[in-house]
Amino acid sequence: MTTSLVRGAVLLIGDEVLSGRTQDVNLQAIAKFLAPLGVQLAEARVVSDEVPEIVAALNALRTRYDYVFTTGGIGPTHDDKTADAVAQAFGVVIDVRADARAILEKHYTSGPLNEARLRMARIPDGAVLIDNPVSRAPGFMLGNVFVMAGVPSIMRGMLLGVAPHIKGGKIVEQRIWRGRGLREGDLAEGLQALDEKYAAVSFGSYPWFSAQGHGVHLVARSVEPETLEAASAELAAFMRALGAEPELVREDER
Amino acid sequence: MTTSLVRGAVLLIGDEVLSGRTQDVNLQAIAKFLAPLGVQLAEARVVSDEVPEIVAALNALRTRYDYVFTTGGIGPTHDDKTADAVAQAFGVVIDVRADARAILEKHYTSGPLNEARLRMARIPDGAVLIDNPVSRAPGFMLGNVFVMAGVPSIMRGMLLGVAPHIKGGKIVEQRIWRGRGLREGDLAEGLQALDEKYAAVSFGSYPWFSAQGHGVHLVARSVEPETLEAASAELAAFMRALGAEPELVREDER
Repeated sequence: MTTSLVRGAVLLIGDEVLSGRTQDVNLQAIAKFLAPLGVQLAEARVVSDEVPEIVAALNALRTRYDYVFTTGGIGPTHDDKTADAVAQAFGVVIDVRADARAILEKHYTSGPLNEARLRMARIPDGAVLIDNPVSRAPGFMLGNVFVMAGVPSIMRGMLLGVAPHIKGGKIVEQRIWRGRGLREGDLAEGLQALDEKYAAVSFGSYPWFSAQGHGVHLVARSVEPETLEAASAELAAFMRALGAEPELVREDER
Repeated sequence: MTTSLVRGAVLLIGDEVLSGRTQDVNLQAIAKFLAPLGVQLAEARVVSDEVPEIVAALNALRTRYDYVFTTGGIGPTHDDKTADAVAQAFGVVIDVRADARAILEKHYTSGPLNEARLRMARIPDGAVLIDNPVSRAPGFMLGNVFVMAGVPSIMRGMLLGVAPHIKGGKIVEQRIWRGRGLREGDLAEGLQALDEKYAAVSFGSYPWFSAQGHGVHLVARSVEPETLEAASAELAAFMRALGAEPELVREDER
């Protein structure tokens, strides 16, 4: 890692992920959203709906990484504790805020604006609201922390409002090659040689097994586009030398 | 949480999850595998393929939770660093071990047992091997840490070998009710009242939105089966009072 990389962390908040009831899909969505903005995810954590757990994880992550992205725990029910935890982590007060309340009053169509729904207008002091184009109750940004909903469709909507606040760094580009029939044990030595040759490129090897057969995905990643092209070409030639016909994998059909 | 609960943590190791290239499915598989054994996941982390990152996360988790389950980073390529990191975390030596090597020699059919493949027989001192019925290269257990492969089909095969080593505690049972058409803001107050009435039951509320409409899943969880049945029945009656016909969700069709 060089200092020109901007690094982010994701904090998934929710018993439902830890219990196995819910398959998380937010981590991958956030990672794919951030990559072209020049933010690399460096760590992720999943914690339960307990304020001390959220506070501890948030403080560990926000002091270490450039940005932290949380999902979950900002709804109207008693198990939604994220806003309070964020306020506690930053040592600021939290209360129903007029601008957030106004958004709910103007747009909320899902029922009366009762005490429970007003919980969604409780915003830590100093936070900037993040628009929620899907269900209106806003997320927010406080310092380097972005607080978003846990429902994937709502979270993805909020990411649109996150983007303008992000100051990314160098963009890590990647090339993914599929090598049908290849086995990791046969290519490990040559791949390591490539890894040592190209200091600015990181290489990864990921075996796959399916009904159609088996093989390896070989990945090259770098912030230097020209170096990446050279390394990627050499990687493909290496795969051919092993007897495989390398196929470049599009980012959206991995 | 009472002291009779046995708590576990999951450590997912791999750049491919953090970059968004791979959608993790191991966390949910491990959570569902452990629940009926009486182990509740209390935290999960995802770290990159860097030894210091793995060591730090592993030491944080293994000192705090009863068990830690790692996935990823035990293959033959240069980016597979988990075994070395585990040895470093425990302060023990690591080398090719005869029993692990014998497994590879006897069963490995994917190519010559070269230096790269022998990396998969490098086992930290004092570890117990975990059988890999899928692709043979073993996982291992050291102290309260279970080290497994990252490829989901191989990881799930290793879980069979993990089970005999687990001493679980009380089993957390859950009841999941689907309430079509319900909105969280309308049920939050009543749900909180239930949460306060049943100290031994934890209630969760999870809204869903789909092409078929919207609604809420309400979840009750407890280690006391009779209390759970009473709370679950009252939860269903509460949903009926709100105008929904509660549907009990089977664990495998959430």
